[in-house]
Amino acid sequence: MQGIAIMGHGVVGSGVAELFFQNRDRIERGAGEPLELRHVLDLRAFPNLAYSDVFTTQFEDILNDPAVSVVAEVMGGLKPAYDYVKRLLCVGKHVVTSNKELVAAKGAELLGLAREHGVNFLFEASVGGGIPILRPLAQCLAANTITEILGILNGTTNFMLTKMFREGMGFDEALSTAQRLGYAERDPSADVDGHDACRKICILASLAYGRHVYPAQVHTAGIRTIAKTDVLYAAAAGAVIKLIGRTAMQPNGRLQCTVSPMLVTNSSPLATVDDVFNAILVRGDATGDVMFYGRGAGKLPTASAVVADMMDCVKHLHARKTLFWEEGEADYVADWRQQTAALYVRAKAADHEAAFGAVEQAFGCVRPLDYPEAPAHELAFITPAAPRTEQEEKLQSLSTVLEPLNVFPVCGSTGGTESLC
Amino acid sequence: MQGIAIMGHGVVGSGVAELFFQNRDRIERGAGEPLELRHVLDLRAFPNLAYSDVFTTQFEDILNDPAVSVVAEVMGGLKPAYDYVKRLLCVGKHVVTSNKELVAAKGAELLGLAREHGVNFLFEASVGGGIPILRPLAQCLAANTITEILGILNGTTNFMLTKMFREGMGFDEALSTAQRLGYAERDPSADVDGHDACRKICILASLAYGRHVYPAQVHTAGIRTIAKTDVLYAAAAGAVIKLIGRTAMQPNGRLQCTVSPMLVTNSSPLATVDDVFNAILVRGDATGDVMFYGRGAGKLPTASAVVADMMDCVKHLHARKTLFWEEGEADYVADWRQQTAALYVRAKAADHEAAFGAVEQAFGCVRPLDYPEAPAHELAFITPAAPRTEQEEKLQSLSTVLEPLNVFPVCGSTGGTESLC
Repeated sequence: MQGIAIMGHGVVGSGVAELFFQNRDRIERGAGEPLELRHVLDLRAFPNLAYSDVFTTQFEDILNDPAVSVVAEVMGGLKPAYDYVKRLLCVGKHVVTSNKELVAAKGAELLGLAREHGVNFLFEASVGGGIPILRPLAQCLAANTITEILGILNGTTNFMLTKMFREGMGFDEALSTAQRLGYAERDPSADVDGHDACRKICILASLAYGRHVYPAQVHTAGIRTIAKTDVLYAAAAGAVIKLIGRTAMQPNGRLQCTVSPMLVTNSSPLATVDDVFNAILVRGDATGDVMFYGRGAGKLPTASAVVADMMDCVKHLHARKTLFWEEGEADYVADWRQQTAALYVRAKAADHEAAFGAVEQAFGCVRPLDYPEAPAHELAFITPAAPRTEQEEKLQSLSTVLEPLNVFPVCGSTGGTESLC
Repeated sequence: MQGIAIMGHGVVGSGVAELFFQNRDRIERGAGEPLELRHVLDLRAFPNLAYSDVFTTQFEDILNDPAVSVVAEVMGGLKPAYDYVKRLLCVGKHVVTSNKELVAAKGAELLGLAREHGVNFLFEASVGGGIPILRPLAQCLAANTITEILGILNGTTNFMLTKMFREGMGFDEALSTAQRLGYAERDPSADVDGHDACRKICILASLAYGRHVYPAQVHTAGIRTIAKTDVLYAAAAGAVIKLIGRTAMQPNGRLQCTVSPMLVTNSSPLATVDDVFNAILVRGDATGDVMFYGRGAGKLPTASAVVADMMDCVKHLHARKTLFWEEGEADYVADWRQQTAALYVRAKAADHEAAFGAVEQAFGCVRPLDYPEAPAHELAFITPAAPRTEQEEKLQSLSTVLEPLNVFPVCGSTGGTESLC
């Protein structure tokens, strides 16, 4: 018999409890022994629940209960989660979490503390909700050198982009639809500005390459700039626009890591990942492309990953999992402006023909994009792959004939070989 | 330092050796200690390889070498692999294999032997090649009750169906193209008749539901019956045809397990899985749909899964993994004719109108399918969901007005709620 505890009884926490009682037989069989839910930490009371008697408002009830060996932290945020998790690890309790903010900010430190105290710190639920991704990346793909990871990591923005592509909505309408359905918060900044996706690509990059990547090191652009015309130009290119978290290791040992809208050709398996679904495409030198797909958020999918981690902790009470990464370094992440990519460019141009002439002179071959009712004083094109700084200089040099309205990379074009041009 | 050995130096075996030497640093770091490739078993000699000195034709060299703790069986087939693996497990050596025929036929017995002798028997590579699926199913989704698994499990047939759908090839042309490219063997029966997919769905079903399913218990239909007209009727229905291995647990504790062509609507994530790619869609009560996608075969992808299993064995030399299932039972798998599904039916009919009238009388609402140049004396339709026996009786009763040419289920229609009708 092992005692377990849940910190936070919000969406995920209540899901963890619900799933525990719903599938208790198979969970205990999988864990190898009976489990007892001894505490649920929340400031609120839930008098009508079957397990209302285990609620507490005192963190110390969990910290000081010697019968509790595994704790799920599903409060979210850094305060007080960071302090609580540290103290739990230091007294030798295993901790699992769905808290991507915590792992992205403090992962290396908490993994180090866990190692020091001979316990496990697991966080499968922090990326991709119920999609198995961290454990497969660390274990099943362990014989591979990971060359690149590309992820649709935020369900809210993917839902919005799907509405914009499939139903012709503009950004504002797509956002209000997502808010009405409960997919987006009143303040949607964490989603639409890319911060949520940024935390997740930090965790993936840290795990894949063994060194902590901090959110502040990652160039992050969201989807606020995506207009209806971008959608139509993209469709004309046989592509969609997705918010992509991307990481890849450079030969010089410095890491590429960005979050940005990208043009994704329809032939990519990422292109058909729609609505609130997430997908993570992992490129290995041996496996080639492997993709993991599913619901990246939601009560029970996320709870499913938390409970699986708790089961794994119970099975490994005295044998540590090898999940680990080192502390980060200031210059570990390469300047995103040095990265090579083909770019999608939409720009204002008074004189269409003169502008295209100048563009072709600056970039060489470009692929012009058009659709039947495109705005008269706008043009769009795809450049060949080149370092971003170089591309920006070229655009700058064209400022007399065109004014860029939206610029983002073409997915899969970073090697310069798969350009749409 | 742990000694390892490879049995079989064919496509997969040579890939295992290649990958081991190519990524040796990260493999040994992941395994936690240095590894030495001590033997490669093959009847042939490979004098020009850098590791030609470790070749042997004698199985006993591996069996009797106390320094060898982990052996990769990548010979394929039952003879002599079954005997060799048994003997290795019995002397306490860990075994990993890519041999789906072996696992589908003898999995429960070999898992039992491994447990008895305190060693691991792992086989991630036997399903989906380099796609992580067995470990995520057993570990990451462990808190779920798995309601259904649907898999595109054979790359050869998926390549052929893709050619038929995207390039208008007929079956014969698609087969000869696959043969020319080395995707299909001279005798393509194992692929096109569904036997390879059958072995894989047996392994998935055994793992997901805890009891061995033998290939002989699984109703298996291949893709030889798929004609160009089926492709065009499917397209008219907004669908594609995929060879699907499917398993689901009935409330009465008996298992549904089949391999069959299925009509898959374009909105399904399985519909866009093309060419030689495989995908396995797992439905859990908590996660909802989770899909795993990648190359289901090939030298390095398969070797990647074999090497990852070997690393896992080295990490768990004295701690057994919990991967396990019980022996099967004669009546464990339910009669496929009792399963409920909507059916796609293509039939010969001299009098179109009379035939459709009779069809509607027998089935109630059906969805007629048509395309501009459909054969005059043919019709196609989708029935409502009902038990297969009932559907067959109805078709029988219509034998005076129509002669069925091809009949297979609509994917996702088994619950009767998602019928295309």
